[in-house]
Amino acid sequence: MLPERRIVITAEPTDGEVGRILRSELGKASGEGSEASAAMRMQELFLFMADHAQHLAKTIIPSLESGAIVLSDRYADSTAAYQGVTLQGIVPDPVSWIQSISRPWNIQPDKTLLFILEPESALTRMQSRSGREKFERLEFLRLVDENFRAIAALDPQRFVLIDAGQSEMAVANEATEAVLNLTG
Amino acid sequence: MLPERRIVITAEPTDGEVGRILRSELGKASGEGSEASAAMRMQELFLFMADHAQHLAKTIIPSLESGAIVLSDRYADSTAAYQGVTLQGIVPDPVSWIQSISRPWNIQPDKTLLFILEPESALTRMQSRSGREKFERLEFLRLVDENFRAIAALDPQRFVLIDAGQSEMAVANEATEAVLNLTG
Repeated sequence: MLPERRIVITAEPTDGEVGRILRSELGKASGEGSEASAAMRMQELFLFMADHAQHLAKTIIPSLESGAIVLSDRYADSTAAYQGVTLQGIVPDPVSWIQSISRPWNIQPDKTLLFILEPESALTRMQSRSGREKFERLEFLRLVDENFRAIAALDPQRFVLIDAGQSEMAVANEATEAVLNLTG
Repeated sequence: MLPERRIVITAEPTDGEVGRILRSELGKASGEGSEASAAMRMQELFLFMADHAQHLAKTIIPSLESGAIVLSDRYADSTAAYQGVTLQGIVPDPVSWIQSISRPWNIQPDKTLLFILEPESALTRMQSRSGREKFERLEFLRLVDENFRAIAALDPQRFVLIDAGQSEMAVANEATEAVLNLTG
């Protein structure tokens, strides 16, 4: 049964002015990121935070107030999982630290769909370029994957884990079911 | 006696891409700021944090490493003092909360010069426009002033308080002396 409520499909980083800075940085070669200084990694974290805050103000809060269902492709947990890796050694316990920064003002989703895929398979799908970069990216993705699983384990009622190793159709069906369950 | 070290004079918000977003927002009429949503105030905080991190990475750290003295017109304490007002009611104990976010990665200045001026006198110098706005801004500046004094009181060795109600020459002399004392 399809919901009668409007569905707003959105994403982070957004296409706002801060999101555009982030997308341009993220588009750069992965090697640069790994060599970035502590301060540049902090900058990246705070740009994600600023973009998330703007996303809430301009899109998510007005959409929720109008009665819509909001579906965001990546949200605050992705910032905790990814920047929780880039900030290792810069702040203590980075995932919890990042979560503590967004907790006072973030809007927690009713459900978060986490698509689980072994980092090796994810890399194959991404068709990464050279051996060395691939290794670096694999290590990085493994740590991100660990962070996501740890975040989900602490909030099992909110998270729906979906095996993204299945066929596209099976993944889509599970995701659709999780969203429709919310509107029942 | 003049120092033989190079002096780098810089400022926050910077003239980088994030600083430019901030300067454009800060240039808007004060009325808008006071009505901004909680999320927009959070965005502003994180843009200041991101700009500060970039400032460290691009200007301050390289300058210090080259042996220069860095003199920044506003720094992390200003973010704590100003956004410590805008975030009242949004996060608990906002000044301490903002400080806790920058503590793990900020570079603390050797000295911070705090120019103390009664908010009423500051407003007269600014020649603010209408009565109502003036009152709102006065309340805001009083709270910022309180925050600055509280921050300085907790770190008396770092802060040099300068009475900005004196003549321009007397203020400049006190400031110069505080800087030259560092190079002795």
